[in-house]
Amino acid sequence: MAVLTTLYEPIARDLERVCQIFDDELFSDLPLINDLCAYVRQYRGKLLRPGLLLLSGKACGKTTDEHLTLAAVVEMVHMATLVHDDVLDDADLRRRCPTINRLEGNEAAVLLGDYLISHAFHLCSLLESQHASRVIAATTNIVCEGELQQVHHRGDFNLGLDDYLQIITRKTASLTGACCRLGAHFAGAGAEPAANLERYGLAVGIAFQITDDVLDIIGSEKRMGKTLGRDLEKSKLTLPVIHCLTRADDTLRKELHLLLAGSSPDRSRLRNLLETTDSINYSLDAARDYVESAIARLEELPPSQARHNLSRLAKLIISREQ
Amino acid sequence: MAVLTTLYEPIARDLERVCQIFDDELFSDLPLINDLCAYVRQYRGKLLRPGLLLLSGKACGKTTDEHLTLAAVVEMVHMATLVHDDVLDDADLRRRCPTINRLEGNEAAVLLGDYLISHAFHLCSLLESQHASRVIAATTNIVCEGELQQVHHRGDFNLGLDDYLQIITRKTASLTGACCRLGAHFAGAGAEPAANLERYGLAVGIAFQITDDVLDIIGSEKRMGKTLGRDLEKSKLTLPVIHCLTRADDTLRKELHLLLAGSSPDRSRLRNLLETTDSINYSLDAARDYVESAIARLEELPPSQARHNLSRLAKLIISREQ
Repeated sequence: MAVLTTLYEPIARDLERVCQIFDDELFSDLPLINDLCAYVRQYRGKLLRPGLLLLSGKACGKTTDEHLTLAAVVEMVHMATLVHDDVLDDADLRRRCPTINRLEGNEAAVLLGDYLISHAFHLCSLLESQHASRVIAATTNIVCEGELQQVHHRGDFNLGLDDYLQIITRKTASLTGACCRLGAHFAGAGAEPAANLERYGLAVGIAFQITDDVLDIIGSEKRMGKTLGRDLEKSKLTLPVIHCLTRADDTLRKELHLLLAGSSPDRSRLRNLLETTDSINYSLDAARDYVESAIARLEELPPSQARHNLSRLAKLIISREQ
Repeated sequence: MAVLTTLYEPIARDLERVCQIFDDELFSDLPLINDLCAYVRQYRGKLLRPGLLLLSGKACGKTTDEHLTLAAVVEMVHMATLVHDDVLDDADLRRRCPTINRLEGNEAAVLLGDYLISHAFHLCSLLESQHASRVIAATTNIVCEGELQQVHHRGDFNLGLDDYLQIITRKTASLTGACCRLGAHFAGAGAEPAANLERYGLAVGIAFQITDDVLDIIGSEKRMGKTLGRDLEKSKLTLPVIHCLTRADDTLRKELHLLLAGSSPDRSRLRNLLETTDSINYSLDAARDYVESAIARLEELPPSQARHNLSRLAKLIISREQ
């Protein structure tokens, strides 16, 4: 994405070093593991989490060596969740490449996810203080809770808006929030600006996940380069469907239930049903509201190029390719 | 096991507190997660890793609050590997209960393993220094390498003795070694006794895994309360088979290959084949040798009840119920 390159311009050299730290940490004496890690490197896409962490640091004054290490840590945590998510979703495609589970089997994918999370904690433990280790581990605790909640509620047609928001806040936004908080903290920011940037990161994460869930229904696999429609296949209720169910009459509700419970899902049928209640637009509006509230948080920081780019990054999240 | 109770007598009160720390760390606001964790608690059996850590501490002088925390950490790491191993092995039974994957599905089991490993690192990060976090994360890196190596070599009839030892040292012995090293370190032991106890722990871990692999072939599911024969089913070569293959003539080798490649494994047929080369006895002798070498390491510590019990614990490992 060309826009992203200009957004990341203030942290371009940092990001290069982050990728080097990432690769160095994953190096193994065993060629079979290096092959797997080389493959996983292809999944490295937007570098959203390192971007948030480094820009938050810059917006609070500076980035340090700790920022570079932590940016690699959060990307590694994210990669681990991607690899395990693809196992859970039985996904075939990720960034236009076959997923690890498809290529090497579920067993190698489960273990590679474990390898990545272990290395994330290892890299984090190399820092001087325990602060980052505590924040990262507390965050991954919450991420796992959200994921477990999500699996538990598969096929639960009574899942409400609040439950949905709780789940995506845990599984996605808690990590983007932690990135911003850590970025601020290691730039020497006080508790208040750090908490403020964390709230920015939380709102950005929620907006990101809502958009992702919408794209799972309306996006093009070809353009996005990953398996779509898995939420429907796995009877995972997301915002558009939850909204539609609250607006639906008995007939529509029954039709939705049948569609979601069915074994051969039909995305275009789902899109038609969601159109009757304008639920896609409702969801995109909700994402936009979260982006607005994220940007409002930035007002409390002194003006800077980094602050400006954090604001543009938030907007970019909801205008992703479909 | 009554013997274990007497062995753990010097650390009985410590172990009670360790179990409390373990349970407190896993507490969640979400009832669905507490239910899963309550279930996993049933897998808590011999507490071998906390036992090694605490007895190593005592053998070097004392156990501290750090020991209690770390004993809970290593048990949590171990639990995480059990939960993921049961997914990989498609196992039905663990400590006489259905496995998490059988009860709640592979998805919940993958995520619960992640939840456990995340909490292990979180608990570890609460300590003052980074030392333990570094040792634990470096160890889990190695454990994952061993597990990945093992999956990679499934069905590899050329797997040699050295490869096998490398795999089990990584996946099992590295953690028991780390337990002893940490136990010594936090009791204030110097680098030499800590390294010495780590070597004891490594040898104990290797002996433990060899015995486990033998029991997978000759043990009784009823008495052991867990799914057996999965190594054979998953074409995983272990010491008895590797030894047999090196001694086998062409006919026997072909028969073994067929048996290992087959989809419906026959443990009793395998036992008969292994008997022709006395490979079960060879393997048990190898385990015994590792126990002897472990015990020899203890000579360099001052005599104490804890040292004596570490020695008895090593012997107990190879005389487990079949």
